Amino acid sequence: MARSAPKPLGELALIEQISRTFSSAGAARNKAVALGIGDDCAILRPPPGHEILVTTDFSLENRHFRRDLHPPASVGHRCLARGLSDLAAMGAAPLAAFLSLALPAKILRTRRGQRWVQDFLAGFHSLARQHNTPLAGGDTSESPADLILADIILIGSAPRGRSLRRSDAHPDDALYVTGSLGGAHAELSALLKRTHRSRSTASDSHPHLYPQPRLAVGSVLLRRHLATAAIDLSDGLSTDLTHLCESSGLRAEIDSSALPLHSLTAKLSRQDALHAAVHGGEDYELLFAAPTAMRIPRKIADVPITRIGTLHPPRAGKPLITLHHGGDISSELKPAGWQHFSS
Amino acid sequence: MARSAPKPLGELALIEQISRTFSSAGAARNKAVALGIGDDCAILRPPPGHEILVTTDFSLENRHFRRDLHPPASVGHRCLARGLSDLAAMGAAPLAAFLSLALPAKILRTRRGQRWVQDFLAGFHSLARQHNTPLAGGDTSESPADLILADIILIGSAPRGRSLRRSDAHPDDALYVTGSLGGAHAELSALLKRTHRSRSTASDSHPHLYPQPRLAVGSVLLRRHLATAAIDLSDGLSTDLTHLCESSGLRAEIDSSALPLHSLTAKLSRQDALHAAVHGGEDYELLFAAPTAMRIPRKIADVPITRIGTLHPPRAGKPLITLHHGGDISSELKPAGWQHFSS
Repeated sequence: MARSAPKPLGELALIEQISRTFSSAGAARNKAVALGIGDDCAILRPPPGHEILVTTDFSLENRHFRRDLHPPASVGHRCLARGLSDLAAMGAAPLAAFLSLALPAKILRTRRGQRWVQDFLAGFHSLARQHNTPLAGGDTSESPADLILADIILIGSAPRGRSLRRSDAHPDDALYVTGSLGGAHAELSALLKRTHRSRSTASDSHPHLYPQPRLAVGSVLLRRHLATAAIDLSDGLSTDLTHLCESSGLRAEIDSSALPLHSLTAKLSRQDALHAAVHGGEDYELLFAAPTAMRIPRKIADVPITRIGTLHPPRAGKPLITLHHGGDISSELKPAGWQHFSS
Repeated sequence: MARSAPKPLGELALIEQISRTFSSAGAARNKAVALGIGDDCAILRPPPGHEILVTTDFSLENRHFRRDLHPPASVGHRCLARGLSDLAAMGAAPLAAFLSLALPAKILRTRRGQRWVQDFLAGFHSLARQHNTPLAGGDTSESPADLILADIILIGSAPRGRSLRRSDAHPDDALYVTGSLGGAHAELSALLKRTHRSRSTASDSHPHLYPQPRLAVGSVLLRRHLATAAIDLSDGLSTDLTHLCESSGLRAEIDSSALPLHSLTAKLSRQDALHAAVHGGEDYELLFAAPTAMRIPRKIADVPITRIGTLHPPRAGKPLITLHHGGDISSELKPAGWQHFSS
């Protein structure tokens, strides 16, 4: 936790609060953290023969969350979930998280603000503990605007050369997704129609507020050599499948009736539910490719796995992604992932 | 470079611009980067037997820099220098940098804004190339305010168990600093008096705009077992020496006449020059401890090394840091590092 200038008292108290919150799930419980918060750098010692995976994700107020819409515990949870999901997509295990957090002066100085921070850290900490991820450092600052600004860094590890990339799918591989799709979009739409902030807590029924990163599934895919390629569904199936196809130099055919729709989409029309599932984004499920001959379990780590389509070599005149609707009816699926509510 | 929502065209162009800028100093030139920008995570492969060092540092407009004061190349340079200096303080070598960058919509859309980004990246890239540090990923976003927000993450490595900590100094160790002190404060004071933005470029004579992280010195200190403890002077000698003393459980006696003052402090009164040197901050020199019997070269990697004092066991009634002014005159030095110009 390097610092460029002396911290005002509020910031020192914040660092103290962060250290206290995380001491229980902290360095002591994870052998990989040789030195945590308090020096110029943290020191990590990954298992021998492992490579290091690194991802960084902003969580900026009014871009990635809204204070009037998201309970603080959800903001903390989602902030960490984004990074953990990136590790899951590569089949990696988390070694440590780092949090850069800038808070408005008002938050540091008011009781209400301090409660916000406490709940934010509790949401972050709860998910961190669940995935044995110590907070090993970061940075703090007073925010230059009346906006909460966070950047979350996740460091993970995987056996050398074994990390799942999005570029290694083969022609004729089958395509699978974990869990269900469209739930995050459906919950967000419902939240936007409400006038008061939700008081929900973390559970499977809140795919937008408390998404569950699929680390256990990713780990099994890697360990048992099940997948050739994987990506997490952060931008929506249409966008993320486009990334996988482009990276692997392939095209995809998807069966729309095979898509596992989240139960929260049941209230929507068939068309809206399908739209939420293919363009919705932020479901943080995994999309992966596996040889057709590979027997993929129906559940991995208790998470349902659904085959949704097949990859093919590119062919002139064929779109990158074809969505089959039954019978002879099909359409081109273009990347049109979910737009931020703020823009 | 994971993404939570589809990027507007400006952001895609930005990622493209970043990739282009860094391709020359990029993954190809650093064997440690097995996979750079473009997947859910970057993959790093540190040298066998090495531990991993991680540091994150915000560079937020109006907190850490001002657009009317700092040329964009300086903002990019300083942003990276902060992280590199943290690695230098532990004796580590950089493996890769990650940049989370949020830009106001106006910057992405105007020619002037695009030039700002180009110069910012050029400043960042120039220092990165100098220290063989590829940019391996990060995040991009539209800023939620009319403010440029950056968070820089540095990953480095050092032989396992050999990283220099601030907590391992011994009683009777001598204290040394690299380079000279007070220059950053003196240059900033001069900048604040000017009306127009400086057009300076990187060189040793701009300790505030273009500080030089002491990676080569840190590396020699570690390799040759010269230092018992080290810290970088980011907050100012009074604050950073306090950290070192507290972490090591020791007190320090400093000889004020031994402090190597930067030539830019020559225009100041003796008292103001001393103030800049002990409280100024952001000099990004190294402060290190070494056994008195150890022969420390006068220069390491071409950087002058100056002995400034000695560490002692704590004693009741003695302050944590005593500053000796010659003869019998001495005073207590309390941490009172440099305050941000914005606060």
